[in-house]
Amino acid sequence: MQLLRGGVTAHSSVTGTDHSATENQIDLNSDLGEGFGHWGLGNDEDLLNVVTSGNIACGFHAGDASTMRKTCALASKRNVVIGAHIGYRDLAGFGRRRIDYDFEELRDDLLYQIGALEAFARLAGARVRYVKPHGALYNSAVVDTTQAHAVVEALRSFSNDLALLCPAGSVVAEMAQEVGIIVVREGFIDRAYEPDGRLVPRRRPGAMIIESEVAAQRAVQMAVEKTVTAIDGSVLPYSVDSLCIHGDTHDAAGLARAARRALVAAGVAISSFI
Amino acid sequence: MQLLRGGVTAHSSVTGTDHSATENQIDLNSDLGEGFGHWGLGNDEDLLNVVTSGNIACGFHAGDASTMRKTCALASKRNVVIGAHIGYRDLAGFGRRRIDYDFEELRDDLLYQIGALEAFARLAGARVRYVKPHGALYNSAVVDTTQAHAVVEALRSFSNDLALLCPAGSVVAEMAQEVGIIVVREGFIDRAYEPDGRLVPRRRPGAMIIESEVAAQRAVQMAVEKTVTAIDGSVLPYSVDSLCIHGDTHDAAGLARAARRALVAAGVAISSFI
Amino acid sequence: MQLLRGGVTAHSSVTGTDHSATENQIDLNSDLGEGFGHWGLGNDEDLLNVVTSGNIACGFHAGDASTMRKTCALASKRNVVIGAHIGYRDLAGFGRRRIDYDFEELRDDLLYQIGALEAFARLAGARVRYVKPHGALYNSAVVDTTQAHAVVEALRSFSNDLALLCPAGSVVAEMAQEVGIIVVREGFIDRAYEPDGRLVPRRRPGAMIIESEVAAQRAVQMAVEKTVTAIDGSVLPYSVDSLCIHGDTHDAAGLARAARRALVAAGVAISSFI
Amino acid sequence: MQLLRGGVTAHSSVTGTDHSATENQIDLNSDLGEGFGHWGLGNDEDLLNVVTSGNIACGFHAGDASTMRKTCALASKRNVVIGAHIGYRDLAGFGRRRIDYDFEELRDDLLYQIGALEAFARLAGARVRYVKPHGALYNSAVVDTTQAHAVVEALRSFSNDLALLCPAGSVVAEMAQEVGIIVVREGFIDRAYEPDGRLVPRRRPGAMIIESEVAAQRAVQMAVEKTVTAIDGSVLPYSVDSLCIHGDTHDAAGLARAARRALVAAGVAISSFI
Repeated sequence: MQLLRGGVTAHSSVTGTDHSATENQIDLNSDLGEGFGHWGLGNDEDLLNVVTSGNIACGFHAGDASTMRKTCALASKRNVVIGAHIGYRDLAGFGRRRIDYDFEELRDDLLYQIGALEAFARLAGARVRYVKPHGALYNSAVVDTTQAHAVVEALRSFSNDLALLCPAGSVVAEMAQEVGIIVVREGFIDRAYEPDGRLVPRRRPGAMIIESEVAAQRAVQMAVEKTVTAIDGSVLPYSVDSLCIHGDTHDAAGLARAARRALVAAGVAISSFI
Repeated sequence: MQLLRGGVTAHSSVTGTDHSATENQIDLNSDLGEGFGHWGLGNDEDLLNVVTSGNIACGFHAGDASTMRKTCALASKRNVVIGAHIGYRDLAGFGRRRIDYDFEELRDDLLYQIGALEAFARLAGARVRYVKPHGALYNSAVVDTTQAHAVVEALRSFSNDLALLCPAGSVVAEMAQEVGIIVVREGFIDRAYEPDGRLVPRRRPGAMIIESEVAAQRAVQMAVEKTVTAIDGSVLPYSVDSLCIHGDTHDAAGLARAARRALVAAGVAISSFI
Repeated sequence: MQLLRGGVTAHSSVTGTDHSATENQIDLNSDLGEGFGHWGLGNDEDLLNVVTSGNIACGFHAGDASTMRKTCALASKRNVVIGAHIGYRDLAGFGRRRIDYDFEELRDDLLYQIGALEAFARLAGARVRYVKPHGALYNSAVVDTTQAHAVVEALRSFSNDLALLCPAGSVVAEMAQEVGIIVVREGFIDRAYEPDGRLVPRRRPGAMIIESEVAAQRAVQMAVEKTVTAIDGSVLPYSVDSLCIHGDTHDAAGLARAARRALVAAGVAISSFI
Repeated sequence: MQLLRGGVTAHSSVTGTDHSATENQIDLNSDLGEGFGHWGLGNDEDLLNVVTSGNIACGFHAGDASTMRKTCALASKRNVVIGAHIGYRDLAGFGRRRIDYDFEELRDDLLYQIGALEAFARLAGARVRYVKPHGALYNSAVVDTTQAHAVVEALRSFSNDLALLCPAGSVVAEMAQEVGIIVVREGFIDRAYEPDGRLVPRRRPGAMIIESEVAAQRAVQMAVEKTVTAIDGSVLPYSVDSLCIHGDTHDAAGLARAARRALVAAGVAISSFI
């Protein structure tokens, strides 16, 4: 996998619009609606004040119907673009354990989730505009042809208009681009990178960036300089269209606000990719 | 509850079309797609040759994404109208145990199911055209204002075009009619009726009609004479728009075919209510 | 239902031991292990320092295997008696929605939960010593013969040694006593009571007692004077063997500690009922 | 992995008893209780007349509490030894999709299942005597150290008396033997073998043996000659203690009866390994 090369294509994979026009623009996305029934998670109210795109859980790894309704309503009210955060059928594992799905079963489980969320998005006067795989599915779709294919086919089965939010250079990004799906390339401001462009695994020391200032500075570097500094100090070219703000890390909203402030101060327009 | 009165309104509750034109016409509906994962149920292939409307399980009391996809595809191919068979979140109980949902939670769980099925219906080149409550929700919506209201609001939250398949005179039918939802009145050819128009509870002797010929004869009586003979021999006025063919009873498809043959022989047009 | 009379029987329902010896003794119980997978709930660490009996969720309305293991280990280490907090199969509703189970299905679902918890209790060098119904099952077992019977039969199917923690005078208490099950009568220090001994419904103003001092004072009144002051100011005789400390209310642990301190100051021995 | 070598150890891995005494003896095992709620599966009544050990589903990949109760009662009545058929938490996938569980989560989910089944076994006057991993867990435990370890630790966490039913030479067999767990080596009479002793994957032509006579002849060969003929015609040494009779294949009971008849005719004693 060559994440790097995918990330530095000269032409924006997002649109055919003038590339220069988007150089000072970035989307901020965050996971939303990750509670389930009696159990809450994250601070959606805070995050909705910061992000421009919301990845809303669809009931398979997290989320339930009433949470989806409320989250879509809130997102729509604040003009946050609604995305389907699709995952494995695994509430007990929060979608973080890889499951060896058959292609058809995975594609269908994912399409089911998009359809369910669409009902709540429409009720809120909006639409599902993009899809982002969650957890272990996200990681699998980066390297696994079968699972990446299932993601792509779920999108295409739903409509021709859905964008895909995923890492540049991943298998799923390439398969999506081949069939004409708009790929929105995502970077992480709270994660360290390997010199080859991959994320440092969570368990490794230094993998998580927890200081707001550092994360904010990395956000600006990605948005303005189109580079990222790897864990060994090397600087990699790295073009992204959206920055992910995690909602379940310590003081996520604080980190998100710091990043947003720094981006604005650096002259970057914060706006959704749609 | 006065099922009877609801069932004998002079004006068809279905449409504003010329009533005489529909007097020799009836819809046949059946539950479809009631397997789950490795477990099958019913004989959808056979039933799809008999019915004009299919109540497709949406994954909460039965059904899963791949089954929904296949069932929608089959139904669409055979011009069977697709309905969402919505139920409680209760796979273990097959949706047959009443659950005391809050209004909002029920409404949202039901909307979720309709949205999910719509994705598969559209993929099959069709649409969800109506909703039928399943099992204990069906029974609750007949008498319980909260649950009936949740059904009605789920329909309205989804679109203004969905019809509701339910017993005439039920609370849910009345609430739906009040807000302009098209109500399709349903009769049962394999169930005995009380003199007041209600169904004889399943556990009572004589509640189930298992002889194909008797069921077929009752189908014709409902469709042509607009009456039903109650368990005490009295004849009740009883106008219905659709006859339900159960798929999980012994030789359901045989009974369904017998009814269809008898209806056709009696000059009744078998066609969906849409 | 005559909660009151059940609660004031002259002879302790708990044991045949000398009644006078137990007059200055009370058990404190709390719900524990109510997270699920990625979702946490409550503050078990704090509560385990206060209570003498722990109602551990068994995976049907809350709890999962790893949480059960950890909670049993912690409880055992701190000499907190382990009880099975059995509930409906309803994670989405946290067991708080009544489900119209068949008797057999409910009895079996409950026995299943006790058996599962026993494996973790034994691993921790302990045993499941009692059972407490959770949520809507708790409320149903107070008045509903079928569900109360299922609770009693689940206990008896498991062993002859399990005690039942429930309100005095409830249907389930009476059915349990009839077949020789030890009934531990429970009172609530953070809930208001009606003049007839029932709890004031949660939604009514004044139903919840949130001031630590008031709750602590009520705890002492129940333990020492064997009375409770109802919401209308009347004082009812009210004998209980255990006081319930809720874990999910605001500052539950603070309230629990205040109650414990007040009880100790009043000379009441805090000890489990086993 | 060297399945072959594991299978031909000169000393029975089952017991320290005189090996010659067991040469004409074999256990027959089958999966039982694999329905869920409204959905049935297999023909337990028939199989219980043929087998000596029953692998009973515990509610995670199949089975529910009432099915477990009934199946344990039936098994006990017919002196069929009760085993816990433990699997992933994956009803939708019937436990046939590998899930990348953490070690602790898997161990705990498995212990939970054993504990739940034990409650029903005891109620039937019996005990859980052995454990057999199901589906994808079975396959993973053959090669995957983490998952094999979780199986072994679940057994040990429950008791020191549980046997493990699994393929000879597998990782889980070796890990179990190291800690003193009795390993019961299993062979398949309806599956073709590779020349190296592994099973031919289900999807390959010739993988499934569906003729009763062929299966019966292979059963006798395994039980009497301690060999198996591989798909290429080579004859491998192959000692097993139990033969697996699948319950969900076409005419499983017929195949099982044919095997049992042939074994008896060949002078093999059919008896459980306990």
